[in-house]
Amino acid sequence: MATGEVKVLGSWSSPYVMRARIALHIKSVNYKFIEEKLSEGKSELLLKSNPVYKKIPVLIHGDKPVNESLIIIQYIDDTWPSAPSILPSDPYERAVARFWAAYLDEKWFPSVTSVGIADEEEAKKAGISQMEEGLALMEEAFGKCSKGKGFFGGDEIGFLDIAFGSFLGWLRVTEKINGIGLIDEAKTPALVSWAERFCSHAAVKDVMPDFDKLTEFGKMLFPKIRALAGTR
Amino acid sequence: MATGEVKVLGSWSSPYVMRARIALHIKSVNYKFIEEKLSEGKSELLLKSNPVYKKIPVLIHGDKPVNESLIIIQYIDDTWPSAPSILPSDPYERAVARFWAAYLDEKWFPSVTSVGIADEEEAKKAGISQMEEGLALMEEAFGKCSKGKGFFGGDEIGFLDIAFGSFLGWLRVTEKINGIGLIDEAKTPALVSWAERFCSHAAVKDVMPDFDKLTEFGKMLFPKIRALAGTR
Repeated sequence: MATGEVKVLGSWSSPYVMRARIALHIKSVNYKFIEEKLSEGKSELLLKSNPVYKKIPVLIHGDKPVNESLIIIQYIDDTWPSAPSILPSDPYERAVARFWAAYLDEKWFPSVTSVGIADEEEAKKAGISQMEEGLALMEEAFGKCSKGKGFFGGDEIGFLDIAFGSFLGWLRVTEKINGIGLIDEAKTPALVSWAERFCSHAAVKDVMPDFDKLTEFGKMLFPKIRALAGTR
Repeated sequence: MATGEVKVLGSWSSPYVMRARIALHIKSVNYKFIEEKLSEGKSELLLKSNPVYKKIPVLIHGDKPVNESLIIIQYIDDTWPSAPSILPSDPYERAVARFWAAYLDEKWFPSVTSVGIADEEEAKKAGISQMEEGLALMEEAFGKCSKGKGFFGGDEIGFLDIAFGSFLGWLRVTEKINGIGLIDEAKTPALVSWAERFCSHAAVKDVMPDFDKLTEFGKMLFPKIRALAGTR
């Protein structure tokens, strides 16, 4: 088992980095946050620690790097097994939480990105519609997973809360830039109150990016990605 | 926790389905295999059990469906925790096994598919080159994970063995159809002997598809996928 100092290589605006930090906060693990400055290119430490993807976040425990945010959360839960636990203890509930977390990464969040970078109205509408379908599924999943309690994980923030909640900043930026409401009382009432609870949770509030700052960042970032996509 | 009869909805040619079956064999769990016949369209049971993706494999335990092959393996390991265990017990080794399994699904196997459906020589060469890069990474990973023993999981087949080994049939079909050697003594000596051990393992040999049958199936399938891709 790895021991030693814990570091997180990351960036303030990345939902995936936020996941690693929230999991460490839940376990009360002290760590050093090392901001990767995109303007300066990727650091030697990042390239060495994640040679396959060269992506943040990387959790470094002693001299051992762990990559991929959902794998990092599970590593943290396994390495500091004292309560509160992050993955559900029941095998079936664990499988369900893993399923929705993978769904959010592979299907749902790409639709958020597609809305951000769409330069045609039709593509934007299609992306928004996909986002809404996903949110309806998550509203339903919340009913099943939370069993009447405040979080997907029950009384406390769990794996799926972290996986989904980390996207709330970018979800709100998408709502703001497009002048639309996606999580709202009419369509997804359970998610509205869940999102409030999540964002004000002690393990989350210090790493949830400032909304105005993230909106400005999105307004700067999306056209750049769009331009890159156009030159492919 | 789920209890009751265990069923697997699947198809003989799917590497992902094979994963679920190998994991059940390792745990000596009796199950009913229900072949989804693609020619007859998707069954009601499949549509009901995996409404989001409508894909095989689905593991059904009692009345509870579990989707996504890597999640299914972890569910099986959690639900029948008696030895032999499938995931490594060390948290770091578990993270490494999860990392490579995700790499194989997200990066490496798509290159195998790209070779199969490529209709231009250049695209085929690029795909083969990506496959070779991935195999070199897996050869290196084998050295680190196996610690001088026979499998990625050590003395016994583990999570990464199942994730990677399930692709061996399609790897060999790709070699055969293109008249090339990808896993061979010169380039990947450790993987050569690992692949032999894996394919002749008691938990594997009855579900590893017949090579000639899979080759014929590939020759029929790839042009169909290519035609579909061309009409997008």
